[in-house]
Amino acid sequence: MLQYVTAGESHGKGIVVVIRGFPSNMEVDLDFINEELARRQRGFGSGPRMDMEKDRVEVLSGIRFCKTIGSPIAILVENKDYQNWLDIMTPEGSPPPDYNPVTIPRPGHADLAGLIKYRFKDIRNVIERASARETVGRVVAGAFAKIFLRYFGVSVGGFVESIGGVRAEGDLTFSEKVARASNSLLRTFDKKQEEKMISLIEKAKEEGDTLGGTFVVGASGLIPGLGSYTEAELRLDSQIAGALMSIPGIKGVEIGEGFLSAQKRGSEVHDAIFYDSLQEGFPFVRRSCYSGGLEGGVTWGDFLWVRCAMKPIPTLRKGLPSVDLSTLEEVPARFERSDVCAVPRALVVAESVLAFVLAQSYYRKFGGDAIEETLEAYQNYQQYISKFAGRQKGRG
Amino acid sequence: MLQYVTAGESHGKGIVVVIRGFPSNMEVDLDFINEELARRQRGFGSGPRMDMEKDRVEVLSGIRFCKTIGSPIAILVENKDYQNWLDIMTPEGSPPPDYNPVTIPRPGHADLAGLIKYRFKDIRNVIERASARETVGRVVAGAFAKIFLRYFGVSVGGFVESIGGVRAEGDLTFSEKVARASNSLLRTFDKKQEEKMISLIEKAKEEGDTLGGTFVVGASGLIPGLGSYTEAELRLDSQIAGALMSIPGIKGVEIGEGFLSAQKRGSEVHDAIFYDSLQEGFPFVRRSCYSGGLEGGVTWGDFLWVRCAMKPIPTLRKGLPSVDLSTLEEVPARFERSDVCAVPRALVVAESVLAFVLAQSYYRKFGGDAIEETLEAYQNYQQYISKFAGRQKGRG
Amino acid sequence: MLQYVTAGESHGKGIVVVIRGFPSNMEVDLDFINEELARRQRGFGSGPRMDMEKDRVEVLSGIRFCKTIGSPIAILVENKDYQNWLDIMTPEGSPPPDYNPVTIPRPGHADLAGLIKYRFKDIRNVIERASARETVGRVVAGAFAKIFLRYFGVSVGGFVESIGGVRAEGDLTFSEKVARASNSLLRTFDKKQEEKMISLIEKAKEEGDTLGGTFVVGASGLIPGLGSYTEAELRLDSQIAGALMSIPGIKGVEIGEGFLSAQKRGSEVHDAIFYDSLQEGFPFVRRSCYSGGLEGGVTWGDFLWVRCAMKPIPTLRKGLPSVDLSTLEEVPARFERSDVCAVPRALVVAESVLAFVLAQSYYRKFGGDAIEETLEAYQNYQQYISKFAGRQKGRG
Amino acid sequence: MLQYVTAGESHGKGIVVVIRGFPSNMEVDLDFINEELARRQRGFGSGPRMDMEKDRVEVLSGIRFCKTIGSPIAILVENKDYQNWLDIMTPEGSPPPDYNPVTIPRPGHADLAGLIKYRFKDIRNVIERASARETVGRVVAGAFAKIFLRYFGVSVGGFVESIGGVRAEGDLTFSEKVARASNSLLRTFDKKQEEKMISLIEKAKEEGDTLGGTFVVGASGLIPGLGSYTEAELRLDSQIAGALMSIPGIKGVEIGEGFLSAQKRGSEVHDAIFYDSLQEGFPFVRRSCYSGGLEGGVTWGDFLWVRCAMKPIPTLRKGLPSVDLSTLEEVPARFERSDVCAVPRALVVAESVLAFVLAQSYYRKFGGDAIEETLEAYQNYQQYISKFAGRQKGRG
Repeated sequence: MLQYVTAGESHGKGIVVVIRGFPSNMEVDLDFINEELARRQRGFGSGPRMDMEKDRVEVLSGIRFCKTIGSPIAILVENKDYQNWLDIMTPEGSPPPDYNPVTIPRPGHADLAGLIKYRFKDIRNVIERASARETVGRVVAGAFAKIFLRYFGVSVGGFVESIGGVRAEGDLTFSEKVARASNSLLRTFDKKQEEKMISLIEKAKEEGDTLGGTFVVGASGLIPGLGSYTEAELRLDSQIAGALMSIPGIKGVEIGEGFLSAQKRGSEVHDAIFYDSLQEGFPFVRRSCYSGGLEGGVTWGDFLWVRCAMKPIPTLRKGLPSVDLSTLEEVPARFERSDVCAVPRALVVAESVLAFVLAQSYYRKFGGDAIEETLEAYQNYQQYISKFAGRQKGRG
Repeated sequence: MLQYVTAGESHGKGIVVVIRGFPSNMEVDLDFINEELARRQRGFGSGPRMDMEKDRVEVLSGIRFCKTIGSPIAILVENKDYQNWLDIMTPEGSPPPDYNPVTIPRPGHADLAGLIKYRFKDIRNVIERASARETVGRVVAGAFAKIFLRYFGVSVGGFVESIGGVRAEGDLTFSEKVARASNSLLRTFDKKQEEKMISLIEKAKEEGDTLGGTFVVGASGLIPGLGSYTEAELRLDSQIAGALMSIPGIKGVEIGEGFLSAQKRGSEVHDAIFYDSLQEGFPFVRRSCYSGGLEGGVTWGDFLWVRCAMKPIPTLRKGLPSVDLSTLEEVPARFERSDVCAVPRALVVAESVLAFVLAQSYYRKFGGDAIEETLEAYQNYQQYISKFAGRQKGRG
Repeated sequence: MLQYVTAGESHGKGIVVVIRGFPSNMEVDLDFINEELARRQRGFGSGPRMDMEKDRVEVLSGIRFCKTIGSPIAILVENKDYQNWLDIMTPEGSPPPDYNPVTIPRPGHADLAGLIKYRFKDIRNVIERASARETVGRVVAGAFAKIFLRYFGVSVGGFVESIGGVRAEGDLTFSEKVARASNSLLRTFDKKQEEKMISLIEKAKEEGDTLGGTFVVGASGLIPGLGSYTEAELRLDSQIAGALMSIPGIKGVEIGEGFLSAQKRGSEVHDAIFYDSLQEGFPFVRRSCYSGGLEGGVTWGDFLWVRCAMKPIPTLRKGLPSVDLSTLEEVPARFERSDVCAVPRALVVAESVLAFVLAQSYYRKFGGDAIEETLEAYQNYQQYISKFAGRQKGRG
Repeated sequence: MLQYVTAGESHGKGIVVVIRGFPSNMEVDLDFINEELARRQRGFGSGPRMDMEKDRVEVLSGIRFCKTIGSPIAILVENKDYQNWLDIMTPEGSPPPDYNPVTIPRPGHADLAGLIKYRFKDIRNVIERASARETVGRVVAGAFAKIFLRYFGVSVGGFVESIGGVRAEGDLTFSEKVARASNSLLRTFDKKQEEKMISLIEKAKEEGDTLGGTFVVGASGLIPGLGSYTEAELRLDSQIAGALMSIPGIKGVEIGEGFLSAQKRGSEVHDAIFYDSLQEGFPFVRRSCYSGGLEGGVTWGDFLWVRCAMKPIPTLRKGLPSVDLSTLEEVPARFERSDVCAVPRALVVAESVLAFVLAQSYYRKFGGDAIEETLEAYQNYQQYISKFAGRQKGRG
């Protein structure tokens, strides 16, 4: 089974990813993966840390001469400032004599609950892992997934839709929005609204505040029949929602126009099925996509899209009301270097997470130990699909 | 590990649930489980099928003299109308000579993609499993979870918040809303708006249309520290979102005020931490709950809540545009007996699904082969929590 | 993923099996499955229970008109004597007033440790699940696996090799041994030694004692490349050993001549590779099979074999020394109806267990939602294999 | 859940281990882990590679100031000779112009099947992962497990019992044998037979041959009730057999006297239960241990033991008959630097693997996020056990 695990603290040695299950002989373009890491780092409103790091993958295993060899792929992305944190983050020894543990939990973070759960005395132990730095690992895994998906003609993308309540507007297709967003500072498609978003971010920054927003991620070139309705855990909508909700800061996920469709009638929001005899391959087409391309937890093929809500970053320069656990006095939460608005960067993480779920669903369907084998199975399916309509006719 | 699997077709022999991992010696009240099944069946706007079935659990294994014995629990809930469907749903033999396979897929259902994926000739094979009937199994598993959670003082509940865009209003606490909803036809807390919802449903019914809506589910009495920030798949928000999104018809999930908080500033939506020395047990309190009670994927204790969006039922009396696969002609989708609005009933399923995820998180934390052992570990933790504030003080 | 779970107590309602992951459109011959259950029941030295039961599968889900439909398959095999045990095994109510809990643990069973682990007062709760009756579920799952494997030309079989130290002898091939064993009372291939085994069993029976033995299970028609060396848990030898060792009574597993090869030199026990240009398909042949057909955890193709050691049944008519927990006095262990020698019957269970592991390894390699799709992938691989030698030549 | 994954090639950058699920606040002694790695490296008959490497763990994550922090633990053990292999093992670029892929598969290795499975042209891709070097990762994980088990008073050890058919003899207890073995060149307990084993190894070496052997691993200080009879995959015997059989070269596993007991009568091999009122804690004692301490897949407490058979190393200086795939000519298999007899070193790996399975079984039973919490649950159980006999009495 295709899966990955990440490890690593925010100011430790680095972030480790181990990916298991990719077939052998897959061509791996490390430049692409590094570029994905760079995309994750860029983003208007990024904090100063972004300047100092240039994340790069170091391959520890699983790749030889730019190809996967079927063995687990281990990647290390070093934390460039580890040396500065060594005395505080060392696995060995004991804390320096002048070290002050973190004792003021930040609302909106796992700080307080984490301290209790793991019986720590120092919130630093929580902060270091409950950190957006961990998403480096997900972007690496997602970059591999994107490479894998390309073999099947699938591309994954997205765009920011709103920040702090300011919404991008425009009657464009999904791919037009993605294209415009890719050249945009805030990864959004509406130049005019983007300016308002920027002002809002700058104002929030001045005032020591933070902002959230919404974004859309999707994929095109999909086959019908990914995921399954037969078991709850095989439903692709469930897997996607679970994966996206695990990204730090994400508090809402809807498949297509989820919350809107809850206000409508069935006749308004279900995507009618049409037959287009001129359509090559798969002639059953839709002229709307309220469903996000998923019905009963299964892709209808071609396209899927999902919207996420990200809360404002909970580390504020003007600290939120909190309590110092060492005195039990009410004090403002401490500030630890942080962005003002992480929505454009979270979009890159969400793309990665979506890409990995889709890669899993392709792999689950087609199997194969070598990419050639997986592709043969995929081509069989494509052929079957292209003959499907003809075969069904006259059967009933 | 605590887990369950369901099996069974909508008009087959019945729905089977196998639940693994509950500790032994847990007292099982079968009447309560049957009452949960009854709650699932009730609901204004339910279709005629509801009248004819009285779902009841038949214990096949794992319980002796009203107690769990540590072995897998298998439950069968028979489909009361199986005999009427026997010639069409039999595992043996072949279809009756006059049998017409289903060849018109319904938009919004897995019908078309399912047919393709599994290479069927008869959409009946899809319909039978991609059916809300399967949620019987989830309610059974959820009822066991509720029984388990009671040992820890946790209760799970919810209410309908809107139907077809008509929203219940009222400045009430969560538990007040749950209490009022439990006596309401539509499981909502606002009598006045409920009447409007009912009119809406009746109108939709007349017109052969369907309606969706939103509901909230939550739990109280929780300990802090359920879930974990250390790995994506251990985050409770991820598990909850994945589980709720797997319920048929659910298209959106937000943890607390997820989508609203994406429009706000950090200073407005993060729930400040206060210290209340008079509070027994755990003195770190919140005066708001935008976060839904989950920070960094971990419970802060006491309370959590989540909102779901349900699309209108995709089986409409006035069939949506579709295609007859046997002729490739565009025809209205066929109607198969169905409700107009399943939101109040889906709420019961969502409670069940949430309860099971929470039960898993308790069990993961406390382990134990017998319920007495699990409870001892829980009591240790309660004691630790109650001394936590005192111990922290003076440490920093 | 292909997997199954069993539930059910020895004298409860029955044994339930839920199998998940088989592709759709697989033809299911229920008579074959019932015949496998009958094979499990037969066996010289079987206890009286065997006469009264005729195990038969009842399909609860997942099969329609003799074909799988991709949904979970649930099967119930009723316990024919449940009615006689109803007052003692009922999920409801309380024990009858005259009921005496079982308080004397049997050495060699889970009785004592189970009672402690699950904090029971009645060993009956252990006995009922820690019973060979559970293997009914494994035989059902294994029968499905055998049906699946037939699509790939794989057959699974085995034979008893020794009972109570009496060994069958004969210079025969594996398939000859399997063929002879299938017509033999004790499922062994050596008529003469079988007579001695029978005498031994009869003598043991007279004396209230029990006997164990060894058997071999294997499969032919396999492709090379099942399992993998890349991860411990993907190794087929590991999966096979884990699965076989989970059968009640099995205390030893060796892959091929495992324990013998530990006494030999490398030059004596590694199976040399030869090239046979006349061999169709896969021309790299072996002339010995010490390795059992598994190297580095991977099949070399064609054939694999494994040997198991089964201990004597631990329920003896002449009770072993034990302690009555209600008095703490040393007493003989109680006797609960039991066989004298279960080796021939365990062989059937082991075949089933092996078949399921092999089915998993085929499914992991070829994927597919419908059996047609799985077969297409298999045929691709067969074609690749047949050209493999030619393609390799001249490459180095 | 407690689990680990390894990655890394034999001549790549190093071996990576990611361990998930250990509770926080566990004290980690890195010197102990390095010493375990050193034990794995030492061993009479080790090849020359052993001299040049000094394996040492580099902590990448999960440990701070010598304590676990609940986050995944990532460890890198560098391969000291990576620089010499860089042009051949680099993840980037292409093979050097003069590079000759490996084209002669070694019998007894995954070489041929691996090449086919993953559609390689170069057996090097197989050799690198299907290598005993991977066991470095298992020893690291096992060292953590041993550290964890110490909290519960459990120690794991073992000894070599035979090499090339020469058996150590001596009427000693398990712990005496372990003690003697720890000071012995071949990790065996019988000085006299060890000399014979050494001669045998030297002779094999001279003749370009290899040797296998058997060893015993076990644990003492165990609680009763680890593992479970309720499900096949929860049985501890199954887990242990699966884990041990996944060690390269292991071809046989028996729980206690598995194969011997298959030749005996029930009355001879089942370990009678006695009551010893003077025994503190758990008064139900055994005076034999044929069962290996596992009945019905569950520990009886105190002690368990298992025997493994290791085949001779399949890389022989005098190459076994094989085929050059680039010419299809029959040639001797190539030699790649290798030991003559790896049995004493495999023993260390087996201890590690056993330790990890036992750690999992403790963690499954007691849960806990911090080691303090796990220990509290353990102490509850110990207390329950110590009162068990008294409570049972008079109950029946």
